[in-house]
Amino acid sequence: MVLLASLAFNWSAAAQAQTDPLPSWNDGQARRSIIDFVDRVTRRGGPDFVDPALRIATFDNDGTLWAEQPFYFQLLFAIDRVKALAPQHPEWKDREPFASLIKGDMKAALAVGEKALVEVLAVSHTGITTEEFEKVAGDWLATARHPTTKQPFTSMTYKPMLELLAHLRANDFKTFIVSGGGVEFMRVFAEKTYGIPPEQVVGSMGKQKLEFRDGRPVIVKLPEVDFVDDGPGKPVGIQKFIGRRPIAAFGNSDGDLQMLQWTCSAPGQRLCLYVHHTDAEREWAYDRTSSIGKLDKGLDEAISKGWTVVNMKTDWKQIFPFETKPPR
Amino acid sequence: MVLLASLAFNWSAAAQAQTDPLPSWNDGQARRSIIDFVDRVTRRGGPDFVDPALRIATFDNDGTLWAEQPFYFQLLFAIDRVKALAPQHPEWKDREPFASLIKGDMKAALAVGEKALVEVLAVSHTGITTEEFEKVAGDWLATARHPTTKQPFTSMTYKPMLELLAHLRANDFKTFIVSGGGVEFMRVFAEKTYGIPPEQVVGSMGKQKLEFRDGRPVIVKLPEVDFVDDGPGKPVGIQKFIGRRPIAAFGNSDGDLQMLQWTCSAPGQRLCLYVHHTDAEREWAYDRTSSIGKLDKGLDEAISKGWTVVNMKTDWKQIFPFETKPPR
Repeated sequence: MVLLASLAFNWSAAAQAQTDPLPSWNDGQARRSIIDFVDRVTRRGGPDFVDPALRIATFDNDGTLWAEQPFYFQLLFAIDRVKALAPQHPEWKDREPFASLIKGDMKAALAVGEKALVEVLAVSHTGITTEEFEKVAGDWLATARHPTTKQPFTSMTYKPMLELLAHLRANDFKTFIVSGGGVEFMRVFAEKTYGIPPEQVVGSMGKQKLEFRDGRPVIVKLPEVDFVDDGPGKPVGIQKFIGRRPIAAFGNSDGDLQMLQWTCSAPGQRLCLYVHHTDAEREWAYDRTSSIGKLDKGLDEAISKGWTVVNMKTDWKQIFPFETKPPR
Repeated sequence: MVLLASLAFNWSAAAQAQTDPLPSWNDGQARRSIIDFVDRVTRRGGPDFVDPALRIATFDNDGTLWAEQPFYFQLLFAIDRVKALAPQHPEWKDREPFASLIKGDMKAALAVGEKALVEVLAVSHTGITTEEFEKVAGDWLATARHPTTKQPFTSMTYKPMLELLAHLRANDFKTFIVSGGGVEFMRVFAEKTYGIPPEQVVGSMGKQKLEFRDGRPVIVKLPEVDFVDDGPGKPVGIQKFIGRRPIAAFGNSDGDLQMLQWTCSAPGQRLCLYVHHTDAEREWAYDRTSSIGKLDKGLDEAISKGWTVVNMKTDWKQIFPFETKPPR
């Protein structure tokens, strides 16, 4: 009997360990709110059951699924692209912010202001076909390294969030990215990195035009902005591209606030979650006064509405997949 | 032996009949091109195998999945909506095209020209929230009847095309609508009618705006046009909303030509198919000179490129699901 009980105990513990869907999450309120929400909406016959077709979950990307420091990774791509294109543009040597970027002086380049950055994004992202852009962005992602970790950018994802994506999909959720980042930049890596196919990536975009070259159709990326998928643009982007209100939404900044409001203001079980960057040692610590990923109003609203706030420092055993040091 | 052979024969015939994925299609070139294409791209290890993630199929809606005569059904919805709203707009009595529409004089209303129709679409589709619009369009679809068949509009779908959608999905294709119709109008019925969820419906759309009413977020449909998903807009719509080039595309008019060109100009196995409206008795017969669903350049290109052209009269045993008369 003792032997049997002991065997049963071990078996059960092993089964639990084997099937833990969120192994990088410490036990705590954040983890429990996720597990509890998924249990409720998938419990057939239960009061909170949600039809699988309606299990839409939307994720911000920068700062929510992968890091965003010291600058948005797409901006680092744009800068590398400016450098690569510089030989064809001798006039950039005397024009800001190009001159500073080519010299590697980010501080001076950023001092030129937002309008100049829009120009950097335009010259680095447009004037080529969608197929050419895919190749350029794919090549960059395959070779570029993060300035401080020296890791590929696609390794700078959050392991606990990858587990969360997988847990939702294992429970018949359809997972979407809804991000201020450029949609075509994200689509290059989202499928391989997150398991999110291109058609489930919503992002900011420029206008595009169909052209025929030697009788073959191509789509050319134009420098005009078409849609900015940030702040109040996120619920609109969800409506335009998905056409269904999410029942779960995940973000890390004030730019995600309206998406969370749109998600959690509807009746029924809802999960709204903010990732709070609190770990200066393993990642970065920033919130209310940051120029990137500012989380101020969103944090207040999360607290007042009882949304889930992930404390990266205490809630996550491991942050990046490449980390080898033991959890604190 | 004779008995056994006979049994074997019957069994095989029965099995074939049971599993025929396209029972409403007569045997012919059109049917064979579909079966053959699906066989090739799904044959694991074969030279034409396509990874399931890349099996994207895009369908026009009006005239391809459901009928579009005597007028686009969405226009009939708009007209009914104008009539319903008329009591709140006494000024419409003296203003065209509203005055004629309210009197039921379609001919006079259409004579006012395209600009007037855009106004009809604006007053019937905008100025309300997306949730209100869903209800209005859903109520109309549930109660309105087609002027000649007296059937609900969602019964005016083509049975052979419903079978085709199901056959593709059974072979791990992801099926999308890519139509000039309004995206939010189509999303109201596409899931129930075609098995295509809202997030896989691409269409024309107006601008939208997030507003807060009593602290609750709503999305308001604005009268400005945002995107026209027709002609050269279709490949752009595919790129923006799906982000992946289809390997199969289905249309019925010149407005679908660029979508078919975009699909079939890429290397690898591709299926481009035009539905040709040739059956004046069971449906309608129209092509090169029709004001609705004009198929002229597209037909020439289909013939020159060897795309599949469905002759509705000879290729389809049954057209609408509600038809009870035996196939000719």
